[in-house]
Amino acid sequence: MSASTLPVRPPAPPSDFGEAFPNSSKVYLEGSRGIRVPMREIALSGGEPPLRVYDSSGPQGHDVRQGLPAPRENWILERDVSRVGPAPDARGGGSPLIPEGLRRQVYRGDGRVTQLRYARREEVTPEMEFIAIREGIEAERVRSEVARGRAIIPANINHPELEPMIIGRNFHVKINANIGNSAVTSSIEEEVEKLRWATLWGADTVMDLSTGKNIHETREWIIRNSAVPIGTVPIYQALEKVGGAAEDLTWEVYRDTLIEQAEQGVDYFTVHAGVLLRYVPLTANRLTGIVSRGGAIMAKWCLSHHQESFLYTRFREICEIMAAYDVSFSLGDGLRPGSIADANDEAQFAELRTQGELTEIAWEHGVQVMNEGPGHIPMHLIKENMEKQLEWCKEAPFYTLGPLTTDIAPGYDHITSAIGAAMIGWYGTAMLCYVTPKEHLGLPNRDDVKAGVIAYKIAAHAADLAKGHSRARTWDDALSKARFEFRWEDQFNLALDPVTARAYHDETLPAEGAKVAHFCSMCGPKFCSMQITQDVRDYAAGMAGKAAEFRERGGEIYVAP
Amino acid sequence: MSASTLPVRPPAPPSDFGEAFPNSSKVYLEGSRGIRVPMREIALSGGEPPLRVYDSSGPQGHDVRQGLPAPRENWILERDVSRVGPAPDARGGGSPLIPEGLRRQVYRGDGRVTQLRYARREEVTPEMEFIAIREGIEAERVRSEVARGRAIIPANINHPELEPMIIGRNFHVKINANIGNSAVTSSIEEEVEKLRWATLWGADTVMDLSTGKNIHETREWIIRNSAVPIGTVPIYQALEKVGGAAEDLTWEVYRDTLIEQAEQGVDYFTVHAGVLLRYVPLTANRLTGIVSRGGAIMAKWCLSHHQESFLYTRFREICEIMAAYDVSFSLGDGLRPGSIADANDEAQFAELRTQGELTEIAWEHGVQVMNEGPGHIPMHLIKENMEKQLEWCKEAPFYTLGPLTTDIAPGYDHITSAIGAAMIGWYGTAMLCYVTPKEHLGLPNRDDVKAGVIAYKIAAHAADLAKGHSRARTWDDALSKARFEFRWEDQFNLALDPVTARAYHDETLPAEGAKVAHFCSMCGPKFCSMQITQDVRDYAAGMAGKAAEFRERGGEIYVAP
Repeated sequence: MSASTLPVRPPAPPSDFGEAFPNSSKVYLEGSRGIRVPMREIALSGGEPPLRVYDSSGPQGHDVRQGLPAPRENWILERDVSRVGPAPDARGGGSPLIPEGLRRQVYRGDGRVTQLRYARREEVTPEMEFIAIREGIEAERVRSEVARGRAIIPANINHPELEPMIIGRNFHVKINANIGNSAVTSSIEEEVEKLRWATLWGADTVMDLSTGKNIHETREWIIRNSAVPIGTVPIYQALEKVGGAAEDLTWEVYRDTLIEQAEQGVDYFTVHAGVLLRYVPLTANRLTGIVSRGGAIMAKWCLSHHQESFLYTRFREICEIMAAYDVSFSLGDGLRPGSIADANDEAQFAELRTQGELTEIAWEHGVQVMNEGPGHIPMHLIKENMEKQLEWCKEAPFYTLGPLTTDIAPGYDHITSAIGAAMIGWYGTAMLCYVTPKEHLGLPNRDDVKAGVIAYKIAAHAADLAKGHSRARTWDDALSKARFEFRWEDQFNLALDPVTARAYHDETLPAEGAKVAHFCSMCGPKFCSMQITQDVRDYAAGMAGKAAEFRERGGEIYVAP
Repeated sequence: MSASTLPVRPPAPPSDFGEAFPNSSKVYLEGSRGIRVPMREIALSGGEPPLRVYDSSGPQGHDVRQGLPAPRENWILERDVSRVGPAPDARGGGSPLIPEGLRRQVYRGDGRVTQLRYARREEVTPEMEFIAIREGIEAERVRSEVARGRAIIPANINHPELEPMIIGRNFHVKINANIGNSAVTSSIEEEVEKLRWATLWGADTVMDLSTGKNIHETREWIIRNSAVPIGTVPIYQALEKVGGAAEDLTWEVYRDTLIEQAEQGVDYFTVHAGVLLRYVPLTANRLTGIVSRGGAIMAKWCLSHHQESFLYTRFREICEIMAAYDVSFSLGDGLRPGSIADANDEAQFAELRTQGELTEIAWEHGVQVMNEGPGHIPMHLIKENMEKQLEWCKEAPFYTLGPLTTDIAPGYDHITSAIGAAMIGWYGTAMLCYVTPKEHLGLPNRDDVKAGVIAYKIAAHAADLAKGHSRARTWDDALSKARFEFRWEDQFNLALDPVTARAYHDETLPAEGAKVAHFCSMCGPKFCSMQITQDVRDYAAGMAGKAAEFRERGGEIYVAP
């Protein structure tokens, strides 16, 4: 089928790296085995050295109908993997919605091909070396953290386009952006554009939560165009397959969905295997019951069948499937609180204990694991979540949604939750799932995705600072120095969102001259607090000079004439 | 002079309470002595009782050329006060920019007329009773907290328009919004409109930081139209009076400015009396020197004269002036850090110790005091600020600017700082000074003021929740219950910003029908996690029924047939 017959409109112009980040360029740090690690380098003025920052934006300027280059391909082919024969329906080979350029060979591991297995046998994979360069840390440290289960590298062998990244509390705090169409709105192109947009601004992973039509094809487009790990909640698609009736779900439908998605290249699966039948009644007296979609689906299934969830009873089989593609677990928190009133209750913590039990089973099977966490939690109850997770889940990475610290601000939940996210990131959460301003109200558009990502970059960076991450302070210091020295252009270019910073400045002082002026609109040209610092420095230097003179003269008391 | 000749354009239409808060109305709770305490009452559907929330928006619909009604007038006249004869220059009596309707009689106390003095002599003032009703707390508790110095009631006897409020850590956390024209931009009307706008959205106090022309007149308009306490930094106006040269400042110019502003009705003064000569060199090696405007002015003065600051040497005289009008101190933090790099350094803490010393001197003089705090502080260093302030300043209320938890996000500093503000509010800070998205970049416009106020209402409420304030959870629970029961209109109306919440919802599902629908755009009509809760409740009720039956039958083990 030729591209011209595809029922997909030409893609929107790519989100422009150059436009978003003036004076920035992509540079690549080289490792062994052809490894090239992207960084964003921000050029500065005034003789300042350029600043290099972590970059998640992926290769730019590619045709989304061709997908991204596949730098991991050779690394994967060196492993014990076999080609999987075509199975058109499950693999979308026949779908008119998937152009030729996006078709990839599908692999399956002959046994367990996970980063955890390699790490345990003391092997530093190319993925680990890539991450070591990216994080500015020793490769051996990366390996040992993965081996210990304290960090994961979500990297499906069917996602060769990936630029590897790590999730663990001894690395940069990461953020996830959710995208996905629903039964109500949005198209394939919009979702691919949201992916590009979210990663441009700094999303480290993206979850495709699509529930509408063309769910397989949407995911194929997303993965083939993603340099970041893609996560999904497979039960959503399984539910579509049984016509939306939770009670009609079966292990077989679910298993086939796992394989289908694993073969497409999904890097981590949210699996709500901790929602046990006996926990469900614990939610009966909650203010807001069960608010996790996956949790509600499984609760309904359990009640309908009066049986333990197949996600729990078949958990070892799920592990074996995931080990064969190196899909990581994101053990879902299906009973997370949906309101301040329900925070840290019995249902929530019962499930967390089970997440801990499942974490150890996954590790037995060589599968990488992180644990999902809440939700809606007032500030004084946040730390308890982190402490219990570290203890019960044996330090597997924690991945929380916010938490939102109050319920009273729909329309501003990127802020209510950035507060909780920054705090729990500081306490040790490895990845923060963003919340957009539209949370609880509707599906995020382009502006909402950006607002959510920026709020979460702030939270993650604030957490890195508070944890004393070796590289974090450099960025703050570079920006503050530029600010103090009135290098306005540098201040803008160093901002998380340079164009917005510049636009805000120009609203008050639009003239180009103002951007080299040694004053700003807050105090005006006649007086500026920052100018006084030079006086202070001269004075302090004078005092130091006096002291030196005093010492030279033998330390006699100086008496003014 | 008739109003028609005034060179001020007709005021903008008042910020509309009804439009901002659909289904809300003002109700008044009555106390003794004619006290009427405003609350906002949000009417709900579904048989839910209305929710009453704290209201700072002040009387609505008044002509800004006439000012607000003066409910405190009779209370003040019962005190030992004398009328002050007109002094046209200082009091603006002759300014064509101040209309007849805004002229008020000026009073001065015959001795100390402060709430602190009354509280110490066991007197419950009408202001205290008003606050007790407003906060839902015993009047005696209000009195004792004020007597102890742990809370302040900023309430100048020349501000009869005030609706009294309290700042202290055993009450609701408060927020302040800064407004003020500068040498570069903005007019009197704009500032009055910003005041009305900021208090509409929830600002508990407003600081007028004007530095431009018509500084006296701008302030007069603001105070006469303000139901919330107004704070200023008198050194700004004093500096204007000496042509902007800090070294030309004198005690006399400053003293006259204090009296001028106290007679206008300013409720609290920021006084940077803790910037001592010997502390100034401590800032020499900072990344960002002295960033407080007041701090920089005083540092320059000290260096120029090589003398201790007159704010420090004349501190007792300042106290006597403030006691005569009941102006409260906001002891400034002129050496607060302007970047993450400078947080919690020697200069900052040296000044804080001096703030503590000055707090006790002010108390000796019967003057109410709060202490200003930073600034730019990474999360892990925030708590130390609160602990030292409580210890060194003997539990006087703390009033912080944010703090900002990272420097890398100009354009989003309402978020970088809401994180720190929520945390320090939880730790015990009594009032949070807002930061708008334009911080570091330009002067805030109407949208920025609103964005800053909403972000800080979130931070303050999150802090109230974390501190376990008795009234805080009610609001969250009402909103979450509405959300869970699909009472969409109630959810919007209970939001901090109802119109925005509704607009976001309508972007995805605009039809009126969608607002009574039992689903939302996130999951669509076919499946909804919230619907499942009823199943869970039925199931749990069934289990409870079985258990009761079991007990009734004497507790024999039930064996299935």
